[in-house]
Parts: sequence; structure tokens; C-alpha cells
Amino acid sequence: MLTVALPKGALLKDSIRLFKAIGLDFSAFLESGNRQLQITDPTGTAKALLVRNGDVPVYVEYGQAQLGIVGYDVLKEKAPNVAHLIDLGFGGCRMSVAVKAESPYRSSLELPLHGRVASKFVHCAREYFENLDLPVEIVPLYGSVELGPITGMSEAIIDLVATGNTLRENGLIEIDVLFHSTARLIAHPLSYRLDSDNISQHIQNIRHQIASPV
Amino acid sequence: MLTVALPKGALLKDSIRLFKAIGLDFSAFLESGNRQLQITDPTGTAKALLVRNGDVPVYVEYGQAQLGIVGYDVLKEKAPNVAHLIDLGFGGCRMSVAVKAESPYRSSLELPLHGRVASKFVHCAREYFENLDLPVEIVPLYGSVELGPITGMSEAIIDLVATGNTLRENGLIEIDVLFHSTARLIAHPLSYRLDSDNISQHIQNIRHQIASPV
Repeated sequence: MLTVALPKGALLKDSIRLFKAIGLDFSAFLESGNRQLQITDPTGTAKALLVRNGDVPVYVEYGQAQLGIVGYDVLKEKAPNVAHLIDLGFGGCRMSVAVKAESPYRSSLELPLHGRVASKFVHCAREYFENLDLPVEIVPLYGSVELGPITGMSEAIIDLVATGNTLRENGLIEIDVLFHSTARLIAHPLSYRLDSDNISQHIQNIRHQIASPV
Repeated sequence: MLTVALPKGALLKDSIRLFKAIGLDFSAFLESGNRQLQITDPTGTAKALLVRNGDVPVYVEYGQAQLGIVGYDVLKEKAPNVAHLIDLGFGGCRMSVAVKAESPYRSSLELPLHGRVASKFVHCAREYFENLDLPVEIVPLYGSVELGPITGMSEAIIDLVATGNTLRENGLIEIDVLFHSTARLIAHPLSYRLDSDNISQHIQNIRHQIASPV
């Protein structure tokens, strides 16, 4: 049976809407009080796993799910071995460099040599500053990255920004953008090549749906 | 001013109770609707940061907090450069190997060679199986690790177990224990050595409190 990995959090609603539009209904995940992590579509033709955004490529890479939806930021950070098929358009945000509003820095290149940058996107951050040829220390923080500059532990952060509210609330401003991110459809490479579980038909349906939404 | 890093989640309540017993009140973090990540004790003598359990050693290692409370599991997994001072006794749990109840495996050594083990504690898991001389593939999963065996992606998981309810609900059983974990008091090594902000007095008070709680 076709299995799709869906991401918890910000991308879930639009992901479920998309699959519903191509005839697969996983909206049981949205019911309040839902504790299930695995459900079958009412037509019995497909299964969905509800997992962390960052875990989606793992399930797809190991073939436990043939398709998955995940933010481009995760693909950039983890470089998983999956087929990256379609930009789904929703879940738009940007990977940005931010500093305290009262700091003197107005672009990444103005950051001090050997300064500190806090981020949960350690690989993206490292690659970005290597490309700028600016030696900085990346401090790995997995929650409330804003506390880095607020406490003085780091000069800057690199984090995903959607509305910018969290930055504003914490007195931070964006000074540079690494890349823009949206939700992507990914596939298990072998399943995609062998077209197991009629996966290519589903992919084509999603492509049509994205091109001309109903 | 003395700054302490407190962990969000399961250890927070007991951590705040402990500091209250030695005269530092950070209970504002427990008020419903609290969004602050940084507060000062009402006496104005100390500050507390509210951060992820896994981020506590980062703030302490970089000296942004002189003291911190964190689970032993985090210290084992990340091996941060901090002074590990006191076993606080609370927050007890164990790092366990679990498999599907209907699987044939009843100890780690019975797991199949080159099988898969899902865990967010990648280093602990790798070290454990290296010591057993059992080659397995560690699959990094950061949420709902139970889905590993349920979906058939992995034969086993390594995860923290407190009550065992999550395992039972998911049809898994523990077959081995790597180590037991409790909350620990950690300190910034240099602050500890230099006794900045009267930190040794606070540590002594905590030691007394643990030895004979009021």
C-alpha cells in the first residue's frame, strides 16, 4: 500500500488539503484529540504517517514511506538521499540571519571575525559563512534561538522566519537571507524509479493540482 | 549576577522547587501564560533562563549561565565541557532498548546483525552497540521514535523511559537498560574554579538541601 509521511506542525493542514484534492483523505490527523500516528485513507488505498518535519526524509529515505512532504529547509540541512520532486508552494518562509536591533551589524559580512552565531541549522549556517569566507563559531541551539543574542552568547542567529513576529517580540532584526523555503514533495528513489504502488499517478495528480488548484 | 539555566519540560517543577529551597525564586516560569524566557529572582540576586533540556549545557558551557540543571541523558549524549557537580535525585528515568512485544528478541545481543535501531540519542546508541560488538545501523529520529518498530523501519529503539506508558501504548517492551538518568547540577568550569557570583555558596546550599530536604 502507498504510504505517505506527513509533517507535524505548520505544514500539516496544507499537506492534508493537497492529498484530499487528489483523492486521499488523511484529515483524521486534524481531529482534536487525535493521538494516532498512523492512519489509513477511508478508501483503503493509502496510509499516512504523522511524524516530525525533520523525520519525514528519514521515513522516505528508508522506504517506509514512498512519498513525503517536508520543508526545503530540512532538505538543505540534512541532504537526505531522497528524490526531490515538486515545489508545492505553501509553507513559505526564509532562512535568515538576525541580530539585536541595537547592534551595529547590518549585513552578515559586518559580523565580527570569530564571532558566534546560534542556530539549529548547523550545516546551513556553516556552509553559508564558509561561502562568505567569514570565520565564525556556530553554537548549536535547538529551542528559542533568540536567547542567543539576548543573553549575549552570540552576535547573531540563523533561523527560519515566516511572519517575523518572534524576531520583533525579541528585539531582533533580519539582516540577510540565506534562502527561501517552501514545502516539497519527496519520494523514495527506488519506489519512484520502479513506480511501485502506482506512485507516478499520484505524483502526476499532485503536479496537476499544484498547476491548477481546484 | 548569578545566572542559572533551567530546563523546560519534565524537570522544571522540581528544579524551581530546589532553587526556591535555597532562597532563589523562579516560580514565575510556572505561571500559566508565561512567555518570558528570562526572569530575575524577586530579591534581585539571580537570573534564570528557561531553555530546552538539551540546550542547558550549551548556555553553561559558554558561561552565559554559571549553573544549570539538566538530565544525565543529555550529559551522556552530548558530553559537554561543563563541571558535573551533583546528582539531584529527581527526574528519574532510564535509557532503554525496546522492541515490539511480538518480536523474538529478549535482549540486545539477540538483535540481528546489521539490523536497525532508531533513536534520538545517536551517540549513546552507537557507543552501546560498539561495546557489545554488535554491528547495527542507528537511524536518527527526533520525534515518536516508537514509529520505528511499528512501521518496520527498525528492529528496536533506544529511548528514555520513565513510566513505560508510551511503550505499552505502542505495543513495545523493554529488553535492556543502558543506564539510569536523573537531574544533575552542572556549572561553568571557569566560574566554578574562580567562585564568581558566590557560586560555591549556592552549590553548598543545594548539597545540603539534597542531603536533608526541608
